Amino acid sequence: MNMAPIKKEDVTVPLDVPKAMRETYIKNYMEITKESGKLMLFAGDQKVEHLNDDFFGPEVPEDDADPEHLFRIAAQSKIGVFATQLGLIARYGMDYKDIPYLVKVNSKTNLVETEQADPFSNLWYDIDQVAEFRENSGLNILGVGYTIYLGSEFEAEMLVQAAQVVYDAHQHGMLSVLWIYPRGAAVKDEKDPHLIAGATGVGACLGSDFVKVNYPKKEGEKSAEIFKEAVKAAGRTKVVCAGGSSDEAEAFLKKLHDQIHISGAQGNATGRNIHQKPLDEAVRMCNAVYAITVEDASVEDALRIYSGE
Amino acid sequence: MNMAPIKKEDVTVPLDVPKAMRETYIKNYMEITKESGKLMLFAGDQKVEHLNDDFFGPEVPEDDADPEHLFRIAAQSKIGVFATQLGLIARYGMDYKDIPYLVKVNSKTNLVETEQADPFSNLWYDIDQVAEFRENSGLNILGVGYTIYLGSEFEAEMLVQAAQVVYDAHQHGMLSVLWIYPRGAAVKDEKDPHLIAGATGVGACLGSDFVKVNYPKKEGEKSAEIFKEAVKAAGRTKVVCAGGSSDEAEAFLKKLHDQIHISGAQGNATGRNIHQKPLDEAVRMCNAVYAITVEDASVEDALRIYSGE
Amino acid sequence: MNMAPIKKEDVTVPLDVPKAMRETYIKNYMEITKESGKLMLFAGDQKVEHLNDDFFGPEVPEDDADPEHLFRIAAQSKIGVFATQLGLIARYGMDYKDIPYLVKVNSKTNLVETEQADPFSNLWYDIDQVAEFRENSGLNILGVGYTIYLGSEFEAEMLVQAAQVVYDAHQHGMLSVLWIYPRGAAVKDEKDPHLIAGATGVGACLGSDFVKVNYPKKEGEKSAEIFKEAVKAAGRTKVVCAGGSSDEAEAFLKKLHDQIHISGAQGNATGRNIHQKPLDEAVRMCNAVYAITVEDASVEDALRIYSGE
Amino acid sequence: MNMAPIKKEDVTVPLDVPKAMRETYIKNYMEITKESGKLMLFAGDQKVEHLNDDFFGPEVPEDDADPEHLFRIAAQSKIGVFATQLGLIARYGMDYKDIPYLVKVNSKTNLVETEQADPFSNLWYDIDQVAEFRENSGLNILGVGYTIYLGSEFEAEMLVQAAQVVYDAHQHGMLSVLWIYPRGAAVKDEKDPHLIAGATGVGACLGSDFVKVNYPKKEGEKSAEIFKEAVKAAGRTKVVCAGGSSDEAEAFLKKLHDQIHISGAQGNATGRNIHQKPLDEAVRMCNAVYAITVEDASVEDALRIYSGE
Amino acid sequence: MNMAPIKKEDVTVPLDVPKAMRETYIKNYMEITKESGKLMLFAGDQKVEHLNDDFFGPEVPEDDADPEHLFRIAAQSKIGVFATQLGLIARYGMDYKDIPYLVKVNSKTNLVETEQADPFSNLWYDIDQVAEFRENSGLNILGVGYTIYLGSEFEAEMLVQAAQVVYDAHQHGMLSVLWIYPRGAAVKDEKDPHLIAGATGVGACLGSDFVKVNYPKKEGEKSAEIFKEAVKAAGRTKVVCAGGSSDEAEAFLKKLHDQIHISGAQGNATGRNIHQKPLDEAVRMCNAVYAITVEDASVEDALRIYSGE
Repeated sequence: MNMAPIKKEDVTVPLDVPKAMRETYIKNYMEITKESGKLMLFAGDQKVEHLNDDFFGPEVPEDDADPEHLFRIAAQSKIGVFATQLGLIARYGMDYKDIPYLVKVNSKTNLVETEQADPFSNLWYDIDQVAEFRENSGLNILGVGYTIYLGSEFEAEMLVQAAQVVYDAHQHGMLSVLWIYPRGAAVKDEKDPHLIAGATGVGACLGSDFVKVNYPKKEGEKSAEIFKEAVKAAGRTKVVCAGGSSDEAEAFLKKLHDQIHISGAQGNATGRNIHQKPLDEAVRMCNAVYAITVEDASVEDALRIYSGE
Repeated sequence: MNMAPIKKEDVTVPLDVPKAMRETYIKNYMEITKESGKLMLFAGDQKVEHLNDDFFGPEVPEDDADPEHLFRIAAQSKIGVFATQLGLIARYGMDYKDIPYLVKVNSKTNLVETEQADPFSNLWYDIDQVAEFRENSGLNILGVGYTIYLGSEFEAEMLVQAAQVVYDAHQHGMLSVLWIYPRGAAVKDEKDPHLIAGATGVGACLGSDFVKVNYPKKEGEKSAEIFKEAVKAAGRTKVVCAGGSSDEAEAFLKKLHDQIHISGAQGNATGRNIHQKPLDEAVRMCNAVYAITVEDASVEDALRIYSGE
Repeated sequence: MNMAPIKKEDVTVPLDVPKAMRETYIKNYMEITKESGKLMLFAGDQKVEHLNDDFFGPEVPEDDADPEHLFRIAAQSKIGVFATQLGLIARYGMDYKDIPYLVKVNSKTNLVETEQADPFSNLWYDIDQVAEFRENSGLNILGVGYTIYLGSEFEAEMLVQAAQVVYDAHQHGMLSVLWIYPRGAAVKDEKDPHLIAGATGVGACLGSDFVKVNYPKKEGEKSAEIFKEAVKAAGRTKVVCAGGSSDEAEAFLKKLHDQIHISGAQGNATGRNIHQKPLDEAVRMCNAVYAITVEDASVEDALRIYSGE
Repeated sequence: MNMAPIKKEDVTVPLDVPKAMRETYIKNYMEITKESGKLMLFAGDQKVEHLNDDFFGPEVPEDDADPEHLFRIAAQSKIGVFATQLGLIARYGMDYKDIPYLVKVNSKTNLVETEQADPFSNLWYDIDQVAEFRENSGLNILGVGYTIYLGSEFEAEMLVQAAQVVYDAHQHGMLSVLWIYPRGAAVKDEKDPHLIAGATGVGACLGSDFVKVNYPKKEGEKSAEIFKEAVKAAGRTKVVCAGGSSDEAEAFLKKLHDQIHISGAQGNATGRNIHQKPLDEAVRMCNAVYAITVEDASVEDALRIYSGE
Repeated sequence: MNMAPIKKEDVTVPLDVPKAMRETYIKNYMEITKESGKLMLFAGDQKVEHLNDDFFGPEVPEDDADPEHLFRIAAQSKIGVFATQLGLIARYGMDYKDIPYLVKVNSKTNLVETEQADPFSNLWYDIDQVAEFRENSGLNILGVGYTIYLGSEFEAEMLVQAAQVVYDAHQHGMLSVLWIYPRGAAVKDEKDPHLIAGATGVGACLGSDFVKVNYPKKEGEKSAEIFKEAVKAAGRTKVVCAGGSSDEAEAFLKKLHDQIHISGAQGNATGRNIHQKPLDEAVRMCNAVYAITVEDASVEDALRIYSGE
């Protein structure tokens, strides 16, 4: 594993980026990966996806009740990019101008469950609007994110939107991250490693820069091992792992380290494991995650960062 | 709670407002909140939402049978903004040029109940048409309103329309108010405080200036207390409470006062509690609501206004 | 009731009519109401709505089998406007250049009944095409008509189309007539007076110039009395009553007279009661209806006109 | 019945044809009816509608297996127009430049039967593309054809597409032929004469130049007599009869003669009765059909043509 | 069978190709068929269609786990064209500039099975975007591919998209290949020869250059014989056969030879039989397939190529 900083001339620019946008793409790529080629994405789109479940409750510190908590963390920590909805960015961005942003362009709530209807997350903005917003706001918007529920009866519509999101992002020199989750009546085991490898392969065929998937799980198998299939299937599209629900710190950081060093993942997308902590602790966790992802830290180093030593 | 008038330079303009429209946005914001930062919205969109149920019947005074009643109240009272459909404004506006208007851009009737089908309220006009209407009519149109039924099987379509309504309103320097009501087969308790906090959080992620929700209700809890979660979840998006069906005056005004002074709401949206009264009494009630919302009046002061003392 | 001719300066032009189109709107309004403010609409859209049922059968005179019958009546009688589909106007208009036309822009057949599926009547042409047709044909097209089935599961789509039809008609200085019929699985009693008042209120909120509804019916009540609620609910949108199926002449004319003089309706839309007669008798009936509607005739006067005295 | 050639100045040009296109329309009308006012349409769209059923099998001559058979017949026979899909015309037209073409712009296969789902035939090309194809190809494209399944649950969408097809065809000076077949769960008897008269009336309201329907059938009635209702209901829209499945020659030609001389039809649309024959016989049958339709031949004359005497 | 190289002047350019694009079309046609008139298409779109099933498993060599395997084969072998998704091409094309590409513009996964819902594969990019990509990337993109599931309840939508894909491809001088598979609740036997002939006929009516179908199978019949019906039904549209799942080499090559020399097919589309082999063997198989298709080799010759003799 190469942890030496990558150089601008090493960046492989996808061919749907127009010539006039190649420099922008390279700049965005260098920034979003902090010249490491790896992505630490701080995921903050859950206020729609999970409503207020992740932000309020007996297990959740009071800090997290206020959406500004997310911006405070993103501003005070080391991150690759902070992903959330455009509307939230529009309301806080003027006070958090230095955060690198990724606009999550589709979202749905968790009210209608899969038992009732297959999931569909619809495109809120076309990418020309995101580019216009980047221009109007002067914010440092590096990319866009879109979720596909593979195997949903609405898969056909989401695949088209995803294809357009990736293509249009590249037209504007922005990067794309696809969240791809198999889900719906047709999906028996969402964590099946072979299915997740299918998902990353779809991300590759859609030409995405990054594809975010769930970490596979299989009775009697080590996740870090069985995840290799997915990393390989993605080819040049880089795989990042969803952090999932809150975990005990050491186990969580160990898992991230394994994903990168055993499975070959190129980063992670972490949300609840960061923001469901008081600000100071959240910042330290964020930095710990960053250390493993971008700075090639060991789990021990990361734990030290987290404990503030 | 700061009741001192806010100044133009204190207004936080969302970043999706283009530079050329910042002044318009600030002017509209100052006007709609009467320089108080709080919104008293007189809601008059029920002729579609509830058909003639709110306007005719044994409990309803004759004045209310004529749609002009709404305009008479709006013209003779203190209000932040009068919200109703474009078509109605187009027919009465020439005689009520001084009313500040908000165009409600979607509406549905109550004929198809949730038991039959999940609710969908479709966008009647795009915001460019509203801006064109503002131009052609010369009316003082400060903003637009849109209803989302969260948890409906049509949520995906309404979230997209809402995102576009907010974004486009800001393109034209207009303000946005989202009515967000959880409703549909998937929604067990529409008044659940945690769910309503989910709704205000969605409003925040959509970047709306205001979000209008129902006042939560929970066995054994004080609504004013449990409503705090929703106010917090909304962040910089301001929460206003729907007035609901007609109530006894003192109880109603007390509730508004609590919403603002206990829960932290930034206003209210009142309809039936105003217009289901003869003109003179309706005007006094309107002024009473305004006094609490914008003028920092006590419940007693407001009651005096209402009784015409 | 003012039967004196109205003057151009008395016409209230809705504010969605652009300034450049105000004169056109006023001219069209004066013509369609024959300077009376009331509308006599000769309805001839049934060849789609009811297929050939209204035009052929033991009770129907042979004249009515040929679509030209409608044009002959419209040309030889006094009418406010003749409403039918664009395609039919395109085929006969060159020989009937003096008829004032209203283009009915949506239609459906009666084959799929409400028991099978809720009704949806889709927009055949956008209003720009109607305006283009007016220009190309040189015909005197004064307005457009659109049907909404309120309470249908397709209500959301029809409300949007209706809003656009009214708005766009006004952009071109044309008048709008909305046919609003509650219908669908959710509608128990289509003739309920309170529901019909809901329908006229929706017409008002859509900003239509005229709204055409069915005459209410309720056990133990006089239709002319219970219809007042709907006329009031419509505000400045004028209510006209659908003629319904063929009736005995005196009863029919008495009903029209009551609608105007008791209920306060501003006209009527009559089809089968006119065209299901031989040409000469149809013309006389048309003139009788016109006399009551526009010329303030008594039922007796109208009957004399009908009998050709 | 007037069999004298019609003159250009006698052609009634529908008013949705723009002035600049009137000459083109008249030229196309004269050509498609061979100056007779009657239409002999050779229908060759069945390779989609019926897949290979009509072109291969024990009863079908080998010639018919190759799509070029259709073009050979059309080139060697007298016809008014040859109707088939654009793609097929694009592949053979360079070798058959003299055929007058009509582009069938919608088609569906027969795989999903009405028991499974109501029929929907979707618009493959908009008419601007057909006009562009006419320009690019230099072919003699006189008109377009579109099928409506009246009474299908998709009727609303097909009526809109048909309205646009007719309107747009006229914008380009092309003629329109609507195939209108009642079909779907709501339709009990597709051959009911009254229902077919409803279909031709719908064709008239859509402003089509020609409407193609099935020949009605009713126990105890002569089809030629009961078909008169449909011809009358169509008004100035001309009715042509679908040929249906292959028939014995004399009976078939007698039927065509009756349709024109008894029922008043203005032509026919014949497919399988022509192309399900070896080339030489197909050409003779085509000429026989043409003789009856356009040249006012008797059945005996037509039979002589068919037998090659 | 003519195996002499075809000449540019022998290419029949379909008439929907604009004059300015005729040379491009001819050049692309010559290249894609290697001046043989026959198409050897290397199919590599299965990473979406079959997820990772075709690329990982006990029977699949490790080489195939990485998407670059497909590009390596395509670069090192003789092929007519390599078909895959745009996104994948955008990520690898810069290192494989000499491959002739065909962009597969729609795709779906295999998660939702036909028992659950009829198949729908939606258009990911319009053809203008493909042309823009061709321009931006400088890649040698010769054509586009689209799949139709005939008999699916979504057939109507796919037929429209296919018609547009073919038409638009020709506007840009590109070639079209339609994958047409009968599939859905209405389809009892997907390999029925008569149904497959229906499919190729549909391809002809859509004006496609090539149509790719499954090889028919029927109890007691030789596939090569019963496939003739489909080849004939396609007329001037050339039929190529889908390779299907991996087969024993000799049987597979014999089948291809039969398809061309007995049935009259004009090529084949082979995927798994090539890429589910280690690189070197895959290249040899590719060349063997090419030899039969384009170079008129015997099965024995092809086997010698495959075994590397």
